[in-house]
Amino acid sequence: MSVGERPVNEPVHDIVRVAVLGAGSWGTSFAKVLGDAGREVRLWARRSEVAETVNRTRQNPDYLPGVELPDRLRATADPAEALDGVDAVVLAVPSQSLRANLERWRDLIPDGVTLTSLAKGVELGTLKRMTEVIDDVTGVGVDRLAVVSGPNLAAEIAHEQPTATVIACADHSRAVALQTACATGYFRAYTNTDVIGAELGGAGKNVIALAVGVASGMGLGDNSRASLITRGLAEMSRLGMALGASPLTFAGLAGMGDLVATCSSPLSRNRTFGEQIGRGATLAEAEQANHGQVAEGVKSCLSICELGERNGVELPIADAVRRVCHEGMTAPQMAKELISRAPKPE
Amino acid sequence: MSVGERPVNEPVHDIVRVAVLGAGSWGTSFAKVLGDAGREVRLWARRSEVAETVNRTRQNPDYLPGVELPDRLRATADPAEALDGVDAVVLAVPSQSLRANLERWRDLIPDGVTLTSLAKGVELGTLKRMTEVIDDVTGVGVDRLAVVSGPNLAAEIAHEQPTATVIACADHSRAVALQTACATGYFRAYTNTDVIGAELGGAGKNVIALAVGVASGMGLGDNSRASLITRGLAEMSRLGMALGASPLTFAGLAGMGDLVATCSSPLSRNRTFGEQIGRGATLAEAEQANHGQVAEGVKSCLSICELGERNGVELPIADAVRRVCHEGMTAPQMAKELISRAPKPE
Repeated sequence: MSVGERPVNEPVHDIVRVAVLGAGSWGTSFAKVLGDAGREVRLWARRSEVAETVNRTRQNPDYLPGVELPDRLRATADPAEALDGVDAVVLAVPSQSLRANLERWRDLIPDGVTLTSLAKGVELGTLKRMTEVIDDVTGVGVDRLAVVSGPNLAAEIAHEQPTATVIACADHSRAVALQTACATGYFRAYTNTDVIGAELGGAGKNVIALAVGVASGMGLGDNSRASLITRGLAEMSRLGMALGASPLTFAGLAGMGDLVATCSSPLSRNRTFGEQIGRGATLAEAEQANHGQVAEGVKSCLSICELGERNGVELPIADAVRRVCHEGMTAPQMAKELISRAPKPE
Repeated sequence: MSVGERPVNEPVHDIVRVAVLGAGSWGTSFAKVLGDAGREVRLWARRSEVAETVNRTRQNPDYLPGVELPDRLRATADPAEALDGVDAVVLAVPSQSLRANLERWRDLIPDGVTLTSLAKGVELGTLKRMTEVIDDVTGVGVDRLAVVSGPNLAAEIAHEQPTATVIACADHSRAVALQTACATGYFRAYTNTDVIGAELGGAGKNVIALAVGVASGMGLGDNSRASLITRGLAEMSRLGMALGASPLTFAGLAGMGDLVATCSSPLSRNRTFGEQIGRGATLAEAEQANHGQVAEGVKSCLSICELGERNGVELPIADAVRRVCHEGMTAPQMAKELISRAPKPE
């Protein structure tokens, strides 16, 4: 991708045509939002049969059964077709496969467009956030990179249940262009310039949701869960600040909002996995309850704890999750340890 | 009450004997925590039959059925007996009756003790927080006044389910003395010097819980609820900052923690009331579902909105609750209005 320079203060062009790369539940839901907001949407699916089904039936039954997709949305399995002439690109592939996918797409991306990440997570090995991975591969610079993060359970958005979200971009005018591009009656976006905070909020929430699941599985009540959610967000916020994020982002929709929605939802794989552990299941049994899929928090607790260690930030809850998932600590040991830490100021 | 001066930096005495004034569910639960932490507790009950039952059966069946109270706890209906020779006083009567009660107790309170408020709310008419009411009546000054606030559903604490809380006092050493006095295996207190934030967090959460109840009653999902919780906390935080509180208190256990626990609990009267409204019930029908008891948020939305107006702080969610409860706005109108506000930065 060549870098088309935009002079400072020149208004960002209206977003008319958007490519959404990745047709899982969140990519498809966000593509629907953009279509409902009047944009022309190209949805790239890895499998051509998914693209064909979407175009023929206006549904994506594997990921969003029963949801009607807007006419303005067209699916394709060809990345060149998806990216041709678009004003904005939305990346909606899983976090650990983003780098490899982007390397294939790099030369197809039009000059000057904003690249928006929907993926949450920290790349294993490199410990990089998703926008850092995108910058690594494309070299477009941080001003061109945006993140969508908030209380955004995909299935609820697909059913047009009202929600709010954060669109974070260091370049405020690009965030505003995206905010306009996805404004519909059920989806309300707030802008923010703190990309680091928005990304870490999204990555950390899976680890905290797993801890909350352990508490639920042990039969603990709303006080215990709310304490874990609050103290969990506080430690993610400390980590974020050490990495340059604002604590206010963690108190907002991309931090607290996303965490509260995830911890409340019975659909969260992280919570379900934690619940199994809390009931005394082994790791293998807990995975089985998730149909063999490993919960994201099981992996991300390793990178989050490593980021904490490198930056001298104490993360007691993430560390407890890490020890439960990787060192055989039991749920009762975890609960006892978290409650018996030395008393101190909040 | 005469004011015994404590020279600055003189350590606060250990708390050995405590009076808890008010034997409702939260007063009794907190008295149990203090007893379990090794303090000698005098629990004052308004009705002498409650005091007698507690002393005879070690239970308070009206408020905490099935919960065994510690031997170190003794109940009485005589405030002079409760307050004689204590090192600390905990006020656990309803917020709107605190002033009248304190006027009767004022001259019985030993010199120099810390007065701790468990009540949440803003006094109708005066718009004063509970510590302001206590200072009005006793004149002890803010350094002597503390607040306990956090994700503290009383019934769960009585059943020794682990939780965390905030003890806020402008005088840090007094907060630490209270922290020590209630340290048990299931109750973990953090200190904070932001009394205003801790009190407003507690008062505002009832209003936001009512709004969340309306959303639930309308059948909206976890995204909508999490968005309301997050934006609701943000507006309470703005109000708090205008009144001198720290935004970090709202991001902590006394803000977010308390709000998340209340909004999650099926036991919350505010949430239940809101749910009825969300299902299309009239105000009278919603009250009936609460056994004729008016939810706290129905009253506090008036004082909160008045505080907002006086201080030039926009409170869209509290104002929507006020109009639903007092001006006949319907739940669908409320939802539409909150989602269609002009887009802006977070």
